[in-house]
Amino acid sequence: MSGRNISPNLALDQRIAERRARGERIVHLGFGESRLPVFPPLREALVEGAERNAYGPVAGAEDVRTAVAGWFGRRALPTTPDQVIVAPGSKALLLALQLVHPGDVLLPSPCWVTYRPQAVLAGKRALGVPVPAECGGVPDPDALRARIRRARAQGQRPGILVLTSPDNPTGTTAAPALIRELCGIAEEEELLVVSDEIYRDLLHDPRRPYLSPAEVLPHRTVVVTGLSKNLALGGWRIGAARFPADEDGRRLRDDVASVASENWSTLAGPMQQVAAYAFAEPPELRARLAADARLHARVAAAVYERFVAVGAVCRPPTGGFYVYPDFEPLRAVLARQGVSDDEGLQRLLEDHGVAVLAGRHFGDDPAALRFRAATSMLYGDTREEQRAAQQAVERGEDPLLLPHVAEVLGDLERALAKLTAV
Amino acid sequence: MSGRNISPNLALDQRIAERRARGERIVHLGFGESRLPVFPPLREALVEGAERNAYGPVAGAEDVRTAVAGWFGRRALPTTPDQVIVAPGSKALLLALQLVHPGDVLLPSPCWVTYRPQAVLAGKRALGVPVPAECGGVPDPDALRARIRRARAQGQRPGILVLTSPDNPTGTTAAPALIRELCGIAEEEELLVVSDEIYRDLLHDPRRPYLSPAEVLPHRTVVVTGLSKNLALGGWRIGAARFPADEDGRRLRDDVASVASENWSTLAGPMQQVAAYAFAEPPELRARLAADARLHARVAAAVYERFVAVGAVCRPPTGGFYVYPDFEPLRAVLARQGVSDDEGLQRLLEDHGVAVLAGRHFGDDPAALRFRAATSMLYGDTREEQRAAQQAVERGEDPLLLPHVAEVLGDLERALAKLTAV
Repeated sequence: MSGRNISPNLALDQRIAERRARGERIVHLGFGESRLPVFPPLREALVEGAERNAYGPVAGAEDVRTAVAGWFGRRALPTTPDQVIVAPGSKALLLALQLVHPGDVLLPSPCWVTYRPQAVLAGKRALGVPVPAECGGVPDPDALRARIRRARAQGQRPGILVLTSPDNPTGTTAAPALIRELCGIAEEEELLVVSDEIYRDLLHDPRRPYLSPAEVLPHRTVVVTGLSKNLALGGWRIGAARFPADEDGRRLRDDVASVASENWSTLAGPMQQVAAYAFAEPPELRARLAADARLHARVAAAVYERFVAVGAVCRPPTGGFYVYPDFEPLRAVLARQGVSDDEGLQRLLEDHGVAVLAGRHFGDDPAALRFRAATSMLYGDTREEQRAAQQAVERGEDPLLLPHVAEVLGDLERALAKLTAV
Repeated sequence: MSGRNISPNLALDQRIAERRARGERIVHLGFGESRLPVFPPLREALVEGAERNAYGPVAGAEDVRTAVAGWFGRRALPTTPDQVIVAPGSKALLLALQLVHPGDVLLPSPCWVTYRPQAVLAGKRALGVPVPAECGGVPDPDALRARIRRARAQGQRPGILVLTSPDNPTGTTAAPALIRELCGIAEEEELLVVSDEIYRDLLHDPRRPYLSPAEVLPHRTVVVTGLSKNLALGGWRIGAARFPADEDGRRLRDDVASVASENWSTLAGPMQQVAAYAFAEPPELRARLAADARLHARVAAAVYERFVAVGAVCRPPTGGFYVYPDFEPLRAVLARQGVSDDEGLQRLLEDHGVAVLAGRHFGDDPAALRFRAATSMLYGDTREEQRAAQQAVERGEDPLLLPHVAEVLGDLERALAKLTAV
């Protein structure tokens, strides 16, 4: 089992942190962390939760599961508390799901770095399917049908379909019609749909139509979410899953609870208090979240524009805080600098002071010149700068005009200009 | 994968909590939770850690790993920070170890409820070996040699030996000579020793000689520990592992970090702050821990005496907060009440208002009349009662004289008298 690596995004973040600690100036687009301060009422909930030092129920205490059920209910997914499990991150829930539900895993390609190694850890095959031209996070329907046929012909057993919207790494959102078509395939092929909706509250335009697969296929969809992205709480490790209400759904929930009880036991008590507060969505929290979503939208759009300006092809971001440019139109320019694949491009960018993560880590073709740029760490290195960025948005001002944001975007522009002007 | 169950101890605890919520009076010996208040400086550390909302390194931040390394160093195990991984509970680390290290798992029988299902989850065989007469937590050396021979003859591949001292479920401590003999076998048979030392700081007599397998076999021992038991923080989920310092140890640590990065990502930031404080062991914390260890010792001894008084056979507890009585001498009496196995005995005790966990859940022979009684939830149902129990010990008084403690022990006595006087 040696030769394992830690998740490449976490490894990159550690390397960049070390380079910065040595005083190097780097535009850090390499890590999908919302680098913003903790919203004070969340800290208060943590403190209130300190007395929760008993183990408590594996799936989470009643008050937490009730809050999570309400959260889903307000998103067109009526839910009872017994359909919910909370955990130290949605990642742990996704792994548990893969450990208990049989069959190989169909993944959009590119997709989040973790789905594939989790499938391997669970003894499954990861079957990548290209995403459509219009958005990432979900497979192209025709390609999905073909992949399933091919898989079955080869004796593989596709059992799980992972959909992510808005997605990581492309920062785009699947249209309702596309979700419906994919759900039709899942129903025909008897697949469990795992719908990763962790970026759902970070739609750049809150009026954008959103459809969860759980609305279409309630009996075969598990939805996972968490507080890491929308509330900038990655380091607090809070995730939740919603299981179908029927008999099969209850069995699946029990199976995941079984794995939970042998793995993480239960979400830490103080974090359960935080989850109970956050998933209840009091008005002050909604206001904070809405403003932060506008900040993410503005900065992601700015980074997108800078890649497109130098000739890259890129889907415009519509949710979360990622863009996924394709430097194919610049292949000749890059070839002159010895770059012919995505890791070469990642290295060249890093040499120019820009950290990104090559497409292969998301299951993409290594020969392509694609990478993910996470835009959520550009709000400032200090809490003061980050608060200033939030306050600019709150006041209706443009956060790009703040000197520290303008500076890092300037660094990015200069780096891109240099490596595309060779 | 259906038919999975949640860990039987967690399930029992949920059932008893529900019965108590309905107003039933039950002596709860069914769950190994230290039911004591959070020590206030730990709460302060949690609050200070609130700003740790970034993901941070998978293995844990430098300050935490340094504190844990110091903790091991003060226990005759010189350690550098890079030998350490922290996690949301030692359970998660134990599962990760089983997932990455090849070979089947040799377990003492009886042993903690979780090792066996974890082995199954990791695709391994769990090979139980009876414990010696003098203590639990470790296999009898002769039985271990025989079991390994038999396993190899059957084509099984023993690869891991789990040792627990002080142990759960017997509450006993392995003597240094025994540890040495077992380490000799591990060396001969090229086994990885996983030494679960989570109860190490809860020796009833702090002068009792203690030997960690990592002192004897530094190159092939991983030590796991946590704050759930000694600091009554089960619900906060904080665990740590120490890996060997050599090349193989580093590889194993990297493999576990890889699983961590795909499972729990990292220990929650505020909990890392708590761990940094607690593993540094400031004087006020040592005093708290020493007093709590005396409380555990006194109450465990009292429960032990009550079982022995009605005719059960039992090893005297020397660490942690468990006793593991054998009601074999009472088989005829129990048979008259329709009880012929451990689950029957557990049910009969529960009918008499005493919750325990039958031996089979620890891998013991179901036909035996053995069970585990956890004594750590007898300090009171309210924080005031629990504090009173702690304060009695601090003042050098006998906590058994407190009315609420005397009452629950009286309930236990009466229940035992009733079911042994038939």
